Amino acid sequence: MAKAAALSPLAPARFPNLPIIDGVQFATCAAGVRYQGRTDVMLATLVPGTTIAGTFTRSTTRAAPVLDCQAKIGGNSDAGAAILVNSGNANAFTGKHGITAVEAITAATSTAVNIPQARIFTSSTGVIGEPLAYERITAALDELAAKLSAANIEPAARAIMTTDTFPKGAAAKVEVGGKTVSIAGIAKGSGMIAPDMATMLVYIFTDAAVDQSILQAMVSEATETTFNCITVDSDTSTSDSLIVAATGASGVDVGANSGFKDALHGVMLDLAHQVVRDGEGATKFVEVAVTGAANNADAKTHALAIANSPLIKTAIAGQDPNWGRVVMAIGKSGAAADRDLLTIRFGDVEVARDGWQHPQYSEAAAAAHMKGENIVIGVDLGLGDGRATVWTCDLTHGYIEINADYRS
Amino acid sequence: MAKAAALSPLAPARFPNLPIIDGVQFATCAAGVRYQGRTDVMLATLVPGTTIAGTFTRSTTRAAPVLDCQAKIGGNSDAGAAILVNSGNANAFTGKHGITAVEAITAATSTAVNIPQARIFTSSTGVIGEPLAYERITAALDELAAKLSAANIEPAARAIMTTDTFPKGAAAKVEVGGKTVSIAGIAKGSGMIAPDMATMLVYIFTDAAVDQSILQAMVSEATETTFNCITVDSDTSTSDSLIVAATGASGVDVGANSGFKDALHGVMLDLAHQVVRDGEGATKFVEVAVTGAANNADAKTHALAIANSPLIKTAIAGQDPNWGRVVMAIGKSGAAADRDLLTIRFGDVEVARDGWQHPQYSEAAAAAHMKGENIVIGVDLGLGDGRATVWTCDLTHGYIEINADYRS
Repeated sequence: MAKAAALSPLAPARFPNLPIIDGVQFATCAAGVRYQGRTDVMLATLVPGTTIAGTFTRSTTRAAPVLDCQAKIGGNSDAGAAILVNSGNANAFTGKHGITAVEAITAATSTAVNIPQARIFTSSTGVIGEPLAYERITAALDELAAKLSAANIEPAARAIMTTDTFPKGAAAKVEVGGKTVSIAGIAKGSGMIAPDMATMLVYIFTDAAVDQSILQAMVSEATETTFNCITVDSDTSTSDSLIVAATGASGVDVGANSGFKDALHGVMLDLAHQVVRDGEGATKFVEVAVTGAANNADAKTHALAIANSPLIKTAIAGQDPNWGRVVMAIGKSGAAADRDLLTIRFGDVEVARDGWQHPQYSEAAAAAHMKGENIVIGVDLGLGDGRATVWTCDLTHGYIEINADYRS
Repeated sequence: MAKAAALSPLAPARFPNLPIIDGVQFATCAAGVRYQGRTDVMLATLVPGTTIAGTFTRSTTRAAPVLDCQAKIGGNSDAGAAILVNSGNANAFTGKHGITAVEAITAATSTAVNIPQARIFTSSTGVIGEPLAYERITAALDELAAKLSAANIEPAARAIMTTDTFPKGAAAKVEVGGKTVSIAGIAKGSGMIAPDMATMLVYIFTDAAVDQSILQAMVSEATETTFNCITVDSDTSTSDSLIVAATGASGVDVGANSGFKDALHGVMLDLAHQVVRDGEGATKFVEVAVTGAANNADAKTHALAIANSPLIKTAIAGQDPNWGRVVMAIGKSGAAADRDLLTIRFGDVEVARDGWQHPQYSEAAAAAHMKGENIVIGVDLGLGDGRATVWTCDLTHGYIEINADYRS
């Protein structure tokens, strides 16, 4: 059972005030899947004509609900749609029982909300390898269907939490052709976070009208620079799912409008950052910005090697500007680097240049930056124009405490 | 400055009784490179005719001494040879000063022991990015040359330690053509340990006569299944060096004798295991054995994904048989896997079969295994004949303590 961890020191002051998205309704309940005394199932229904896009974990051991969602996504539909999510049990590595559970849940949801089963998308998050008590979920569907309301997005964000210490939400409004469309999203995620998605569930809703193939392309592209650029512990979940639903209820077809695309990217980046800010045991929010790499792929390889290095993450926890470990991580990453062209910065403090400590390097200035809550590690490789930015958190005693006895 | 950590609970009872290797002499001294009140330089001299083989870090930011060793190794020589190692400062990422330091140390050693500079091999281990006070080392060379003794191998093992909590040694004797040849080796290493070598320095000596190209081939091959199969924290050092010196003083040319090759492999594996047993903060010695993979490379990819997973390493620290995290690691590794063919064991306890918890799985039996000091995680992928075994340790509060303020 998840420990009740203290609120992350990096948590935002409050859950944001999210706009109502026409065409979406939410309901939650306490079905007792695993947790007691809290909500653990959320249902979202979407009006006919809604287009659905998504990205999912690439884990070869991904869970049954993920496989089911992947099979269903694609194409436009005149039918409505629904998303059903439970926390407490991931329904992952549960053999044939896992498929049975997904079938039972999607069938019962279809009946309860009168939407075709082929348009019911489910996610499960929590413990791996234990059979999902799906009958507790199907038994709750009538209650859920009766409670649906457009205003229930914050309770939905709370119902999908596992080890999260705060609910995550983000929103944007954008003008397209003189009319306003709105975007609102929620996410959960705290551990087992790494590229190829994370133990993240993300649901984003907009009243824009968008063709499915255009929406999918936007979502896939934005995932690369948002959710695929965050890492808490380099571990990748079997259940990661991001679903974006465009209801079209605003009557505004945004096509491939760049303002909408940017707004959607902004909501995704905001939610991705919140996941890092709720990283298990995190006390520092860390941006790793790599420039001057041979190409963008090399830059991301270097950035992730730095962001995933336990030695760097512990140094950050200890507020130590230990740039030697940054050199180490660049060296081990496998991507091109020339030791004698490296420039390294902590915040605005240039600590190394041309393969050695900067002649005016001030340890005191670098140490002062490390005492802050937001840490920036900048690396320029001096080789080309490749660049990438990733985000992570520090590695602390809190991470060990949370994970050494999460399950037993 | 390195913290004085408590002796690893996985340390052997005592330093082994290593045989004298004819043709090698050792000396150590306290040169005050960085540490105070302990030895920090070791010199080993080797008789004329000694062949030298080695493997080194593949880091692109590797240190000046590593580059110098790599340039010198290869071919047979009638000259003697020497190895000079300091602890406390890695002479890594020190720009042109790094090259100057290596040049000064190898020149002064050459003079002190009357061996060509092209046959002087050096290593440095410790802090990265600070200039090496090489004049403290060159000033100590006459003292070192005067103290050389064949019996000084244990002091040599102590002088090269950094965060190590115990000195590491291993030996073997093997009959070749009715005569005995001996092998004795020492190593240091404790953190920043990962494949492509580790923050390891390893020196192995034998009185066998071996052609350099044959010795190099043996060493390179054995490295793949020993030092390249251990990981403490997935971080790779800029200074890793393994040097094997065959003095030929026994008069026995072992050629490619399989008994000698096996004995050398055994010494290397023993030292590699000792490095893991001294992993920073380690309380468990963990073997990850993967079988049934599509090929050996895939097996190693899976094994390292498991061994490097922070979630698995913290679960082991918490004595939790959390096999769901093993499923996760296999899924994220990128190598081929079929969820529904997986078998997972903790020790002798089969916890999962055919993609789900084993029907007779006993959580109590698995938990009992996890309480031991030696943990075995077995995975069979059911796909082919590929196999690999790697070794690691758990991730504990001790690791955080050691690394959150190692340097400052």
